[in-house]
Amino acid sequence: MIKNYEFTHRRKNLLNGEWVLVSPHRNNRPWLGATEAPTETTPDRHDPSCPLCPNNTRANGDTNPNYEYTHAFINDFGALTPTLNDDARIDPDELFEAQAATGEARVICFSPEHNKTLPELSVNEISKVVTTWQQQFIDLSSRYSCIHIFENKGEIMGCSQPHPHGQIWAHNHRSTEIQAEDEHQLAFYEEHKRGLLAVYIEKEQTEQQRIVIENEHWIVVVPYWAKWPFETLLICKDTVQTIAQLDDSQSRTLAKVLKELTIRYDNVFNCSFPYSMGWHNAPLDLKDAKHWRLHAHFYPPLLRSASVKKHMVGYEMLAESQRDLTAETAAKILRDVPSIHYKD
Amino acid sequence: MIKNYEFTHRRKNLLNGEWVLVSPHRNNRPWLGATEAPTETTPDRHDPSCPLCPNNTRANGDTNPNYEYTHAFINDFGALTPTLNDDARIDPDELFEAQAATGEARVICFSPEHNKTLPELSVNEISKVVTTWQQQFIDLSSRYSCIHIFENKGEIMGCSQPHPHGQIWAHNHRSTEIQAEDEHQLAFYEEHKRGLLAVYIEKEQTEQQRIVIENEHWIVVVPYWAKWPFETLLICKDTVQTIAQLDDSQSRTLAKVLKELTIRYDNVFNCSFPYSMGWHNAPLDLKDAKHWRLHAHFYPPLLRSASVKKHMVGYEMLAESQRDLTAETAAKILRDVPSIHYKD
Ligand SMILES: O=P(O)(O)O[C@H]1O[C@H](CO)[C@@H](O)[C@H](O)[C@H]1O
Ligand SMILES: O=P(O)(O)O[C@H]1O[C@H](CO)[C@@H](O)[C@H](O)[C@H]1O
Repeated sequence: MIKNYEFTHRRKNLLNGEWVLVSPHRNNRPWLGATEAPTETTPDRHDPSCPLCPNNTRANGDTNPNYEYTHAFINDFGALTPTLNDDARIDPDELFEAQAATGEARVICFSPEHNKTLPELSVNEISKVVTTWQQQFIDLSSRYSCIHIFENKGEIMGCSQPHPHGQIWAHNHRSTEIQAEDEHQLAFYEEHKRGLLAVYIEKEQTEQQRIVIENEHWIVVVPYWAKWPFETLLICKDTVQTIAQLDDSQSRTLAKVLKELTIRYDNVFNCSFPYSMGWHNAPLDLKDAKHWRLHAHFYPPLLRSASVKKHMVGYEMLAESQRDLTAETAAKILRDVPSIHYKD
Repeated sequence: MIKNYEFTHRRKNLLNGEWVLVSPHRNNRPWLGATEAPTETTPDRHDPSCPLCPNNTRANGDTNPNYEYTHAFINDFGALTPTLNDDARIDPDELFEAQAATGEARVICFSPEHNKTLPELSVNEISKVVTTWQQQFIDLSSRYSCIHIFENKGEIMGCSQPHPHGQIWAHNHRSTEIQAEDEHQLAFYEEHKRGLLAVYIEKEQTEQQRIVIENEHWIVVVPYWAKWPFETLLICKDTVQTIAQLDDSQSRTLAKVLKELTIRYDNVFNCSFPYSMGWHNAPLDLKDAKHWRLHAHFYPPLLRSASVKKHMVGYEMLAESQRDLTAETAAKILRDVPSIHYKD
C-alpha cells in the first residue's frame, strides 16, 4: 500500500537522532532569490595550472606522477597534521571541553583527465577509485581509527578544484556524526539483536517507495529521513562494517552503482549535479562492530533546477532541517530519469 | 593570561553537545573555488513589485498597510499551517518515527524602506523591531510552545526578498536544536545548581578573549565553540528565559547592541554582511525554565572577503564542523573594526 505523506510532518533520522520537517505543500512558492550559475564549460583534458593533473608541479614543489587511473597524496593545506608543535597543549578547564587533534588529510585524484566527472568514467575506471579508497583506508587504519573518505563535487559545494577528486581526513577521535551513528546503531542492536541498517533495508524492500537502485550487494534509497532534496543513502546489503572488507564482487558492483547513481543525478536537471558524498565506516576503536553497517551518504543541494538550490539557513540552522518535496517523490524522480547520461 | 590556541584542536559546544574542529594553520590555503558576487546595488526606497513594501498587493491578493515601522503577516508560503487535511495521519510504525506537524509561519517587515538593512536603521527603529518580536511571541505563545524568530539576511543565505525582514515559525513540537539545548542546560543546572549560560558569561568576562560587545543587560561573544568564522552569541545578562519577559531597559539596550553588532559585521569586509540569526527562547511546555537563558545566535558565512564564504560541505556534513581562524581571532577582528558604519 502506497502511503500518503502529502501533509506537513516530521520524521526522525534513526542514524543520528535528528528530526526533519517535511512541508510538501511548500513546493509551490516562487523563487526570487539567488540562483547559482552552473559551470558547464568543458575544460581541457589537461590543465597546465591544475595542481591535480598528471606531471604538474604543485605549490609545495612536488610533481605529480604520470598516473593512469588514480593518484593519492597528502593535502598541502590539510586541516589535520600528524604532529603538533611542542607547545600545543589544552589545559584542563572546569567549563570548556577541548582536545588537541592530530591526523592526516589526503587528496585522491579520480582520473588523470581534468574534464571528467565520476559518472563520465567507465565502470572499470570507477573500480580503480574504489580500490584506491580501500588501499588508503587500509594504510591509514594502522594509525587512525576514524577515517572519513568523501568527495565535494561542484563549486557550489566548496570544491576548489574542478579536477575530479575526493579527500580523506583521518584522525583518532570520533567525529560528532560517527559518534552519533555509533550510539544509535548500538542502542538499536542491544534492543533488537539485529543491526539497524539490516532491518532498515528490509523495510525499504517491503515498502518499495524509496528505492532508487538495487543490485546483488548494494541498495540506494532516498532515506525516510532525508533532509537534502535528493539525498541518498547507499548501503551494503552484506554484513560489512568497513570499506576494507569489500570483496571483488562487492567492489565491482559498487562501481556500477556509483556510475548509475551519479548518472541519474546528472539527468535530473541535465547538469553536472553537485553534491558532497562520503563513507561512514565503523570506527576502528570498537572492540565489536557488529552493530555497524558500511554506508555512504550523498548530500546534493539542488532543489528545483541546475541553478536553484535548497538553502539550509535560518530555521534549519537554528531549529532543524526542513524539506519541501517528500523522500518518496524524490526517489520516484531519481528512478524515472534515464540511466544513460544526458551527454551521451 | 592569554591562552594560545594556534594549533589543531576540537572544542565542544556546551549548548548542543556537538564538537567543532579548529585548524588555525589552514587560513593560508589558496582559494580557487567559487566566489559569491555581493549584491551592492542600492535599490529604491520603494519597489512596486516587492511583496513586503507598504501599500503593495501580494500574490494572494492581500494589500500591505501603509506601515510606519514594522509589519507582520502570515507567510503566504509557510512551511507550517495551523490545520491539516482530515486524511493527514501518521500510522504507528515499528521502525520509523514520525509525527504530523502544525504551526504558523509569519513574516515581519523591519522597515517600510525597501533599501535599508538592520544596521542602517536607527536605534529607535530597531526598538520597534524588538517590540514587534515581543508582541508576536506573546500572541503566538497562547497557541504554540516552540517559537522560532529569525532573520535570513542576504541572497547567499537563501533570502528571497531584499526588503529587510525576518520570519517566525511557531509550533508545538520541540525542534531538534531547542531539544538539544534544553537537555544540555538542564543537565548543567542539575549538576551545578546554576544556569549554563550564567556561568558561561562569567567565564567570558574573566577570560576577556572572546567578548565583542557588552553593556548593562547584554553580552555578545564569539562563543568558545563557534563553528561559523564570525559566529556570535548574544546573551541576556539577566535571568530572562524568553523575549516576552524583557523590560523597557533590556529592550532598549538590545536595540543598541543589535545596531552595533550588525555595523561591526558590515565593517569586517565593507559589505552588507550576510547571516542567519535567530532567538532561542525557553520552550513554553516546560514546567520550570530556570535552567534556560534567552539568547540569539548569529551564523554569518563569510570567511575571507565579501565574496569568499566558508563552505560547510563534505567533512562538515559527514563528520563535524570545521573552522580555520580561532574564535579568539574572530572576536578581535570584530572588536577592532570601527563601530561607525562604513557607509556613513
Ligand atoms: O521563507 P524563505 O525566505 O522563502 O526561505 C528561506 O528561509 C527558510 C527558513 O530558513 C528556508 O527553509 C528556505 O530554504 C530559505 O530559502
Ligand atoms: O579542502 P578543500 O576542497 O579546499 O575545501 C573544501 O572541503 C573541506 C572539507 O569538506 C571544507 O572544510 C572546506 O570548507 C571546503 O571549501
